[in-house]
Amino acid sequence: MRQDRDSLGVVSIDDNALWGAQTQRAIANFRVSGIPIGHLPALVHALAKVKLAAARVNVAQGRLSREKAEPIVRASEEVIAGHHADQFPVDVLQGGAGTSSNMNMNEVLANRALQLLGYARGRHDIIHPNDHVNLCQSTNDVYPTAIRIALITQTAELRSALITLADEFSAKGTEFAGIEKLGRTQLQDAVPMTLGQEFTAFGNTLREDVLRLDEIPRLFAEVNLGGTAIGTGLLAPDTYRTAVIAELAGITGLPLVSSADLIESSWDTGAFVLFSGMLKRTATKLSKIANDLRLLSSGPRGGLGEIALPPMQPGSSIMPGKVNPVIPEMVNQIAFQVIGADITVTLAAEAGQLQLNAFEPVIVYNLMTALALLSGGAAALAKFCVSGIRANPAACKAHLDRSTAHITALVPEIGYARAVELAKEMLSADGVPSTA
Amino acid sequence: MRQDRDSLGVVSIDDNALWGAQTQRAIANFRVSGIPIGHLPALVHALAKVKLAAARVNVAQGRLSREKAEPIVRASEEVIAGHHADQFPVDVLQGGAGTSSNMNMNEVLANRALQLLGYARGRHDIIHPNDHVNLCQSTNDVYPTAIRIALITQTAELRSALITLADEFSAKGTEFAGIEKLGRTQLQDAVPMTLGQEFTAFGNTLREDVLRLDEIPRLFAEVNLGGTAIGTGLLAPDTYRTAVIAELAGITGLPLVSSADLIESSWDTGAFVLFSGMLKRTATKLSKIANDLRLLSSGPRGGLGEIALPPMQPGSSIMPGKVNPVIPEMVNQIAFQVIGADITVTLAAEAGQLQLNAFEPVIVYNLMTALALLSGGAAALAKFCVSGIRANPAACKAHLDRSTAHITALVPEIGYARAVELAKEMLSADGVPSTA
Amino acid sequence: MRQDRDSLGVVSIDDNALWGAQTQRAIANFRVSGIPIGHLPALVHALAKVKLAAARVNVAQGRLSREKAEPIVRASEEVIAGHHADQFPVDVLQGGAGTSSNMNMNEVLANRALQLLGYARGRHDIIHPNDHVNLCQSTNDVYPTAIRIALITQTAELRSALITLADEFSAKGTEFAGIEKLGRTQLQDAVPMTLGQEFTAFGNTLREDVLRLDEIPRLFAEVNLGGTAIGTGLLAPDTYRTAVIAELAGITGLPLVSSADLIESSWDTGAFVLFSGMLKRTATKLSKIANDLRLLSSGPRGGLGEIALPPMQPGSSIMPGKVNPVIPEMVNQIAFQVIGADITVTLAAEAGQLQLNAFEPVIVYNLMTALALLSGGAAALAKFCVSGIRANPAACKAHLDRSTAHITALVPEIGYARAVELAKEMLSADGVPSTA
Amino acid sequence: MRQDRDSLGVVSIDDNALWGAQTQRAIANFRVSGIPIGHLPALVHALAKVKLAAARVNVAQGRLSREKAEPIVRASEEVIAGHHADQFPVDVLQGGAGTSSNMNMNEVLANRALQLLGYARGRHDIIHPNDHVNLCQSTNDVYPTAIRIALITQTAELRSALITLADEFSAKGTEFAGIEKLGRTQLQDAVPMTLGQEFTAFGNTLREDVLRLDEIPRLFAEVNLGGTAIGTGLLAPDTYRTAVIAELAGITGLPLVSSADLIESSWDTGAFVLFSGMLKRTATKLSKIANDLRLLSSGPRGGLGEIALPPMQPGSSIMPGKVNPVIPEMVNQIAFQVIGADITVTLAAEAGQLQLNAFEPVIVYNLMTALALLSGGAAALAKFCVSGIRANPAACKAHLDRSTAHITALVPEIGYARAVELAKEMLSADGVPSTA
Repeated sequence: MRQDRDSLGVVSIDDNALWGAQTQRAIANFRVSGIPIGHLPALVHALAKVKLAAARVNVAQGRLSREKAEPIVRASEEVIAGHHADQFPVDVLQGGAGTSSNMNMNEVLANRALQLLGYARGRHDIIHPNDHVNLCQSTNDVYPTAIRIALITQTAELRSALITLADEFSAKGTEFAGIEKLGRTQLQDAVPMTLGQEFTAFGNTLREDVLRLDEIPRLFAEVNLGGTAIGTGLLAPDTYRTAVIAELAGITGLPLVSSADLIESSWDTGAFVLFSGMLKRTATKLSKIANDLRLLSSGPRGGLGEIALPPMQPGSSIMPGKVNPVIPEMVNQIAFQVIGADITVTLAAEAGQLQLNAFEPVIVYNLMTALALLSGGAAALAKFCVSGIRANPAACKAHLDRSTAHITALVPEIGYARAVELAKEMLSADGVPSTA
Repeated sequence: MRQDRDSLGVVSIDDNALWGAQTQRAIANFRVSGIPIGHLPALVHALAKVKLAAARVNVAQGRLSREKAEPIVRASEEVIAGHHADQFPVDVLQGGAGTSSNMNMNEVLANRALQLLGYARGRHDIIHPNDHVNLCQSTNDVYPTAIRIALITQTAELRSALITLADEFSAKGTEFAGIEKLGRTQLQDAVPMTLGQEFTAFGNTLREDVLRLDEIPRLFAEVNLGGTAIGTGLLAPDTYRTAVIAELAGITGLPLVSSADLIESSWDTGAFVLFSGMLKRTATKLSKIANDLRLLSSGPRGGLGEIALPPMQPGSSIMPGKVNPVIPEMVNQIAFQVIGADITVTLAAEAGQLQLNAFEPVIVYNLMTALALLSGGAAALAKFCVSGIRANPAACKAHLDRSTAHITALVPEIGYARAVELAKEMLSADGVPSTA
Repeated sequence: MRQDRDSLGVVSIDDNALWGAQTQRAIANFRVSGIPIGHLPALVHALAKVKLAAARVNVAQGRLSREKAEPIVRASEEVIAGHHADQFPVDVLQGGAGTSSNMNMNEVLANRALQLLGYARGRHDIIHPNDHVNLCQSTNDVYPTAIRIALITQTAELRSALITLADEFSAKGTEFAGIEKLGRTQLQDAVPMTLGQEFTAFGNTLREDVLRLDEIPRLFAEVNLGGTAIGTGLLAPDTYRTAVIAELAGITGLPLVSSADLIESSWDTGAFVLFSGMLKRTATKLSKIANDLRLLSSGPRGGLGEIALPPMQPGSSIMPGKVNPVIPEMVNQIAFQVIGADITVTLAAEAGQLQLNAFEPVIVYNLMTALALLSGGAAALAKFCVSGIRANPAACKAHLDRSTAHITALVPEIGYARAVELAKEMLSADGVPSTA
Repeated sequence: MRQDRDSLGVVSIDDNALWGAQTQRAIANFRVSGIPIGHLPALVHALAKVKLAAARVNVAQGRLSREKAEPIVRASEEVIAGHHADQFPVDVLQGGAGTSSNMNMNEVLANRALQLLGYARGRHDIIHPNDHVNLCQSTNDVYPTAIRIALITQTAELRSALITLADEFSAKGTEFAGIEKLGRTQLQDAVPMTLGQEFTAFGNTLREDVLRLDEIPRLFAEVNLGGTAIGTGLLAPDTYRTAVIAELAGITGLPLVSSADLIESSWDTGAFVLFSGMLKRTATKLSKIANDLRLLSSGPRGGLGEIALPPMQPGSSIMPGKVNPVIPEMVNQIAFQVIGADITVTLAAEAGQLQLNAFEPVIVYNLMTALALLSGGAAALAKFCVSGIRANPAACKAHLDRSTAHITALVPEIGYARAVELAKEMLSADGVPSTA
């Protein structure tokens, strides 16, 4: 164990750890979810990218010596490359508005830089987490900026999974184009359609959400980096702000720009709420589709049975041969989780006060989780379910033929009132207890 | 138009109105939902009961002259009897923690009392809304107390509607006791049961909620009346507090008692959150049942069709003879509304600060609305749907016979693995594309 | 009372009513919220516009005689002009996927057309609600189309209210530009800023939402009119679909186009979920701002007291001179209501099944209510609160001067560690129990 | 790698794993949250207890040979003792209504029993996961029973944490009993109180929730064990049901009884919804308290500053000496998470269909997570925050003395109207811009 010091005093730290006193305190203080920020690698990498950009700009503009900057740059690059992934142990539900996440990064980079220079960890006199790694920065501009970068990055994965899923649905739409079936509204027999139309619609509805995701880089492109503590830019010269955003745009390949109102963007979480609403919409659509797949495949004998899902798990510990729609059921549960997450994000957004929203940690945790769940759910649905769906044309035809679905087509000739009589006669003919 | 005055100045009021200056301001300030508190008669009556109790105690304990008290008592009794129902125009989403609701009542009672005495409205020198009607009271103890009384009252209605509905389900359970059918788990064919068991279960699940509602009078029995502004009881002697709660218990017939910690009960809204959660549970059950009724009655030819709901509306403007499950659909929507209301109540409860929760108006509005919706929905479901449901024994039998539901019973003899084979053979025999 | 008939039989109707049998049944069946669709005039007018467009196209394309079309057109125009507003009594929480709303309109227009022609109401042989008014239409294309038009219309009002409010904030931003104050993060003293910056940020954050609302006409421009029951366009020729959307675009002045996938757009409610999420974001921002205004005006003596809100209501029935932030409190409650409504909309969207979402009535009710509440809340906040806010420069200065806010500026010179010592010394000097 | 077989075919499994084919499939199919059921040890142990009870009863009643039963019993006891904790890798968001959780346990116990007997894993002919470990059971009765046991167990931890926290608040209430301060309603100066009253109320409000938690064992005591697949008890004799519940009651020490309606209790999730509502209530209270602590400790110089929280983390990466209320902020975020979880639970409960709710996995995951978060949050708040809170009597006194809080006490003597004048005079005397 080595000793490290921060403004509250001395703390003991495991000798192997790269982090410092503040991180160590945070480990002890925030021990609730058991999920460390290291489980959100996109966020960790984004934080390191901000540090990298700042170090480069600070050395270029003469605020940081080359001797100190170089190892900080190298350390940042290592983190971005995936190294030191186990050095970010702070709980995702940390208090402190992200300060502990930012300081965890500052301390790891400082100590790793010291290591690279051959110094012992904790030699803050050589490289200081605040004075050097965090130079011209505040958690309050670094953290919101990193969140935006992380979200853009993760969104690309969801986008890709949704496209794959939409394509699977479209392929089935084509495959099933010739299968006539009964269309149903309000679970009641309506008018004829094809099974292909039903599946094509699933693909199309998801493609609309892909279009929405295309807006995300623009939604999150405005960052408050350079605003420091509350957006007044204290300790961060204008030249720094301009340069660091350009540098970060280069590092990330994203069209980042400075927020028009840095005060506002220091506390505003509106983009997160909007994004969460988008994810909730996708969740809602996926859940609706999962419900339909489960209903259309109900049976196999005592339900609609118009399609058969590929068997993925034996369905029962007691009922032989039973196979359940486990993948759609997983998708439903993912949707419920994402809808719950949206409420959490909303509550956190509403609770912001004055110049900052202290609850961004729970926001980013929920958004990243929602993204991961939706990506995983969409991918599994595509691969383990939709691609293997088979139609049951006989069942489709039987339901259509038994129903009164063809009577609507007669209305123009015989009028609505006469058509009603016809439908009633047909339904009563064979003793089916008509609901009409 | 007459003139009235409050601490902010003079206000013009319609000559026919019984309310005064503060109410008039509130009408102008809170013009958003368009729903006046008069639409919540149980709340209005409960407020008047508190005023009645206070006036009686104040006169008995010598703080209020008999001359002033008598007309206030009479005015209160008139409101309780349903008169002056149009005199409570303040919006349900008012700011001010209920002060405008309380002052609306104080002003109406003062002016009505003046009327009874033969004075002109606004003669505050004779009867003052604050000094006499509101004597020993604060909105902060009157309003939470009245809310509790109103909720207990309204809950009785829901309780009665749920019992009626449960009884209808039980009656159908008995009627359908002999009809064998396929039990389904995860929408897949499972094992045999009877239609009677299915309906009996609906009744039983609702009876559990009736038992929960029986706890409500106890849940809301603790009131903070006498605590005045923040629970310290300023301006309300202990003798007053004891007497007024006893008096109010007599007037309402409810087992009201004083809160153990008046400071806490001045701001605590935990009972409302808990109650909202109970209503949400009932909503969730009703929605599940509505879903099942819609699914079991799906068809009539191209769905499960195991039951038929009574036709209540022609089902389509274009499809002749179509009849939809409109009552269950209404119940689903009621459930969605109640679940949304629970979030609103939760947000309002969480937002309380220091010695008061300023957001009780939105809480009471949502709870009263949820109660009314659930009562109305349960009553309609009983009367317009469940009572008229007919079974389709032929469809029940056909689904059961076609399925592999009977194979599970063979497992003890032949073992799980062999039973699986049997099920597979049976399903593949007739070309049904098996999901297994 | 007169008699009217629909496919379920004969119904008695008040002689003065323009509606017919199906509406009358709906009144009895859906008696829960007590709020009729007539309370959503934008929806009623939008429905009438669809009918107007359909009648014009049907006569132009030879499906409807000029004799029948002309009075239907006139009746529609009357409704659009605001007449017959009391003829739409069906409950907003109706079951039936909007069929009763659509039939209410069909029946009113048919009977009003008969009146114009000099016939008795109910003469369906002359003008039939289904065969003539609803010609080439289904509830399932008419209703979703009308909802979209109504939402676009109502959104304009919110947009205007938000602009007014943003302008009031900006004006205060300018007025308060010279007032230095303490910036706070996590409710702790941070660094200096101006009161003007604080208010300017409120304006800017709302302007971002105005930009979002500008997208609404495009979001809702795709309609499924002409798709009829399930999007296959049964009974609606392609020529009709093309013409009726063009006609409706003309009538409404909106850039309406046909959905690319009519099957999908018959059941998809994704646009509603997204829109609800946008409204929730605005609600969240308004609530955050209301919280800040209440906090900054807390006191007047025992709180921050940096601003004073205009007094709108005497604040207490017991505490003399107390004035509360009633308008921000109303805004908070509106936000809670809108956030709850978003959950209701989400649940309803998720519950759609197969070719239709039966729960659009509860969706449109909640979206229209949310729009009205936000519009009313924003307008009231602008007019009754923000415009009258006065600064307390002395309090602003006192808080700033007492704090350590200026120490951060010294960090570049003396380093973070030394600056910490300085802050500690300053805080301990006068015995304030330092949290550091 | 070894081979194992289930009804869908052959699967390769890591040689060291105790699980079998169905678990292996589940690992591949449900790869979304990354959180295995092993992270919910209370659930794993509860499942093992059910297996233990069943094995004991089955051998006692002659359905299972002593040779097979004994190792199953031993294996169950090992799991209950905490062994094999890494053998439960199925994702918490699994589809299949818990079948994969149940089969994971069945397979681990079967293979561990085989190991104990000296057989190779996978020798289902000797000990079969379904025929022997799962004998007389279905996932549909085992899983809901285990969930209830797990929830009761975990609740004890929350109960204990809340008591500790309440005691800390009460101790502070006593400590601060003599400190007079300003009571505030709606953030406006109200009337006098003591700081002790404020803290005592926090303790009392939490004790009410402890009382609620005391009801939990009773709430979850009714189990459907013995109902098997859908509650008809197929393959489970009545003698088994009676005995197994008694046995399980003995093993767990809980007052378990058989549900009155096994059909209903097979699908009903009402107890989970109610429990979630209780947790949400506790969350709401904790969040309100956290808000108050943050507000009362705001400053230290530019806020209320009436109390000081113990410093737990340096508060800023840029502002020297800043210390933030990180523990209350963590508690707020926990509350937001729990409120979101309640919506997820509600959605899952509402989505149950016919004889089963397939979404219990997401329900139990969210309830267990909510319990853990609340326990951890309450414990941290007690230990790291409340216990170290110090009062600032000078600030308390200053706020009280500056305010008009004492004027209310004069109302009985001088009347409300005159007291208002007095308050206005006092507020205007020193130029504070009065809100009145």
